[in-house]
Amino acid sequence: EKKWYDRIGMRGYVQFRYNKSLWGDKDQVSFWPDSSVGPDKSFLIRRARLILFGNITDHLYLYIQPDLASTPTGSSTTHFAQLRDAYGDIFFDKKKEFRIRVGQSKIPYSFENLQSSQLRLALDRNDAMNSCCRDERDIGAFFYWTPTHIRDRFKDLITKNLKSSGDYGMFAFGVYNGQGANRVELNDQVHMVSRFTYPYQFENGQIFEAGVQGIHGRFVPSAGPNADGITPTRNAPNKGFKDQRVGVHAVLYPQPFGLQAEWNWGKGPQLDGSQTVIGNGTLNGGYVQAMYKHDSERWGTLFPFVKWQYFDGALKFERNTPQNRVRDLEFGLEWQIFPELEIVATYAMMNRTDVRNPPYDRFKADILRFQLQWNYF
Amino acid sequence: EKKWYDRIGMRGYVQFRYNKSLWGDKDQVSFWPDSSVGPDKSFLIRRARLILFGNITDHLYLYIQPDLASTPTGSSTTHFAQLRDAYGDIFFDKKKEFRIRVGQSKIPYSFENLQSSQLRLALDRNDAMNSCCRDERDIGAFFYWTPTHIRDRFKDLITKNLKSSGDYGMFAFGVYNGQGANRVELNDQVHMVSRFTYPYQFENGQIFEAGVQGIHGRFVPSAGPNADGITPTRNAPNKGFKDQRVGVHAVLYPQPFGLQAEWNWGKGPQLDGSQTVIGNGTLNGGYVQAMYKHDSERWGTLFPFVKWQYFDGALKFERNTPQNRVRDLEFGLEWQIFPELEIVATYAMMNRTDVRNPPYDRFKADILRFQLQWNYF
Amino acid sequence: EKKWYDRIGMRGYVQFRYNKSLWGDKDQVSFWPDSSVGPDKSFLIRRARLILFGNITDHLYLYIQPDLASTPTGSSTTHFAQLRDAYGDIFFDKKKEFRIRVGQSKIPYSFENLQSSQLRLALDRNDAMNSCCRDERDIGAFFYWTPTHIRDRFKDLITKNLKSSGDYGMFAFGVYNGQGANRVELNDQVHMVSRFTYPYQFENGQIFEAGVQGIHGRFVPSAGPNADGITPTRNAPNKGFKDQRVGVHAVLYPQPFGLQAEWNWGKGPQLDGSQTVIGNGTLNGGYVQAMYKHDSERWGTLFPFVKWQYFDGALKFERNTPQNRVRDLEFGLEWQIFPELEIVATYAMMNRTDVRNPPYDRFKADILRFQLQWNYF
Repeated sequence: EKKWYDRIGMRGYVQFRYNKSLWGDKDQVSFWPDSSVGPDKSFLIRRARLILFGNITDHLYLYIQPDLASTPTGSSTTHFAQLRDAYGDIFFDKKKEFRIRVGQSKIPYSFENLQSSQLRLALDRNDAMNSCCRDERDIGAFFYWTPTHIRDRFKDLITKNLKSSGDYGMFAFGVYNGQGANRVELNDQVHMVSRFTYPYQFENGQIFEAGVQGIHGRFVPSAGPNADGITPTRNAPNKGFKDQRVGVHAVLYPQPFGLQAEWNWGKGPQLDGSQTVIGNGTLNGGYVQAMYKHDSERWGTLFPFVKWQYFDGALKFERNTPQNRVRDLEFGLEWQIFPELEIVATYAMMNRTDVRNPPYDRFKADILRFQLQWNYF
Repeated sequence: EKKWYDRIGMRGYVQFRYNKSLWGDKDQVSFWPDSSVGPDKSFLIRRARLILFGNITDHLYLYIQPDLASTPTGSSTTHFAQLRDAYGDIFFDKKKEFRIRVGQSKIPYSFENLQSSQLRLALDRNDAMNSCCRDERDIGAFFYWTPTHIRDRFKDLITKNLKSSGDYGMFAFGVYNGQGANRVELNDQVHMVSRFTYPYQFENGQIFEAGVQGIHGRFVPSAGPNADGITPTRNAPNKGFKDQRVGVHAVLYPQPFGLQAEWNWGKGPQLDGSQTVIGNGTLNGGYVQAMYKHDSERWGTLFPFVKWQYFDGALKFERNTPQNRVRDLEFGLEWQIFPELEIVATYAMMNRTDVRNPPYDRFKADILRFQLQWNYF
Repeated sequence: EKKWYDRIGMRGYVQFRYNKSLWGDKDQVSFWPDSSVGPDKSFLIRRARLILFGNITDHLYLYIQPDLASTPTGSSTTHFAQLRDAYGDIFFDKKKEFRIRVGQSKIPYSFENLQSSQLRLALDRNDAMNSCCRDERDIGAFFYWTPTHIRDRFKDLITKNLKSSGDYGMFAFGVYNGQGANRVELNDQVHMVSRFTYPYQFENGQIFEAGVQGIHGRFVPSAGPNADGITPTRNAPNKGFKDQRVGVHAVLYPQPFGLQAEWNWGKGPQLDGSQTVIGNGTLNGGYVQAMYKHDSERWGTLFPFVKWQYFDGALKFERNTPQNRVRDLEFGLEWQIFPELEIVATYAMMNRTDVRNPPYDRFKADILRFQLQWNYF
């Protein structure tokens, strides 16, 4: 019989960051995806991930990923262990083309959401797609279908270090709570999601992937005092606000030149202009990223990239679902010194909303950002 | 010398739940053992357990079990890692018949309390026995004596998939803090517990186990505003209320038909009828469960069961130690599709107190409950 | 290729404590390093450590150490998993004499701070050196240089069970946030630390180690209501108070008789006599410890020791940075029954400040303390 350590493996990565605001509204900088950006900050462990995974049997694949640098709400001490993923993949057929993923896992929506932060070039995800789902994940059940030759192609993209998303199905359909990862459900209605993606391989080996996805559900936002001390009223039925999106993605993998773009449109809760009522709003946004992969014998692999993102919408999982307008431009370079060690430096030209603090002002600032990441595979 | 992975092993299980209230006081449903039961709930990860265990040497057995789906009080985000067990078994003799278990571990009281949730048929434990000890565990030191032939019998029951409790000694005696697992001690007096159990094997192989147990200590309950906003006074000395119980258990293991029953009687803190004073009260309750084990070549193992439980007492580890009256009936089926995957469906006819919310009303409701559990052994 | 379990190892230890106040101001006892000391306490799991470590490649050594018995601020439930260490050692040269340690790790200051609690004789560290750094650690980057023959000497000290500190460089220099382990940075200035230590080996094999160290930075203390309900004002620029120290250490390793002493002097925030203003203050203190190592064939290893400590200063990481005066004397015995199991008993004559509760009174008390520790190596 197999030993436990042949059924379960362990791997992970840690991201260590430092940021410096250079120009603009330096004292107003407040960037929700990274708390080390802004005034009076120095070093931060952004992510410390530990992954337990493995084929327990032919019928069950296990994946448990705590983050070791999380903070419970209300605590002034940090670096507690909190789940990101805890799922089982249950296989039905011998070829493992069909599976149901049960537990907490990523919601199959967007390309960048599904791509691991261990692999992503930009330090943080774009607001437009990422605002669909708190921490990209939720509790639910997801059906995935990936034909064998497509699965091999997904694997190939990982092996070749091409910044792919891994296998979240050629076709995916799922139901989930809808309030976000590590959040308590607040209505008895589930969200639904579906996604189709196809990685097409040209004769010269170049791979191009494109797809569509949609989300449908009802979301219950949280509310708290605005800048005048008034808690906005929530203008919706008890079961929450309509939360609907449809999106498209397209990726030309960096062989060596790559392009990646996504866009989505939708409806959701949104704080009104007077900041006293949360009502229904619309959203629209996406990003375009160009990148280049340069392998060298002596110096490892270099990935210069540039990313432009745009968003007009709201951030439903922040208190009061404030409006969020983003016009960001980012130049960056990822240097994979060794497979186990990489440095990213980016120059981020931010033009966005401070969604954390009422009255939710906008700021413009140029920020120099650094990340050292070590992988234990 | 032995490698670390031959000294320490890793295993665990995850429970994924969904409940639907069908009839009765559906809006009043509030079930303290499972927060996914009640209005405005969907999916829940009830338990995500990771166990590190192993014979470190001949003198020390290690057991560390965090739950990865716990929530610190006051936090609105969930799924943090919190200890259930962290103990060392220290052996004195070569045959390992005598041991002292030090750290946080289960209190040797009741049969169902000691049976792992990974193995239990009913989705939750009965109130009568389980109300002895928050999360069945505490910090302390416990002496266990199990003669070799009895230990083999306990092992056998596990190997044969007979829903047993594992080896918590033929005889047990222990001292512990008494405020519950993961709670701060509030007096300088320890609780004492003792238990005797004997698994008798008939000539035809049928095993019948029966035993007695008792607890003695002083408990300091917490108090907070009742429905009128008044915090009840605690009518006890500083060291807390007398907390005393005596119980009996009997189990006919399912070979293939099984019966399991427990009952206990005792004293403890209890909120009075006016809900303004916590005084001394009595408690009395238990359960009876019938079950059947059906193995099939193609479809795995089926365990139909029915469980009736009764309790008149109070829940000392809930705020204000509200009175708790339970008259529940539950029909269920556990289907072990594979050893690594099982589904439980139950029809629960609840008739009990909402002990979480003052004024602690009673409710009656029929609830359909589902659980998917995956084991990584 | 190497398997994951040959790259990553797992080990740890658990400390189980019980204390009894015997004489003196028993009701006023409040000892910040150990919450099981004082009235209305029984058993405590002081530390439950799990360490993941290993040479991932020739360029990267990984070390991740959560403590499984931590509590988020504001939570009434305990035993959550919180990081102590999460660092990568990055090596530059083949001989591994030079490395940079990035992430959260111990600040190279003092000897006792760097010595693992798994190895320390006294149950808790001395206030004088330990008050430099909350939990001895912080987020930052540290450069270490250890020539090969010195590294071998450090290893030797561990192998020979001589209560050493491990290898934190013959020379160390680092930058770090400065607010303490698992705390959010509150200014944009880093702390700096440097340390030099040299373990000299006499011809008879006796090793003597001595060194110097210094810290320089600005610290932002927290403030809250004093005994009169008034929150002290903080008399410092926004970037915080000067936080500067210089210290010396000397260790004669127990072969079999040992001596260990440290002292440091410095400046830092300090609550004034009126307890209404936090201003700049000075600090001065250290300790002397004598110990003896007795190995026996049948009974394991015994370490009797006596420790005297002195401190005049303040505890910057407690609320309001109260003044802290310590004159403690401690007699103890550590008995290593087996390598995996040890008991410590100490008789502590405390004469110190209750730094947790305003008005920060002093107390004198004699306390009998016990610890059982089990190691899983």
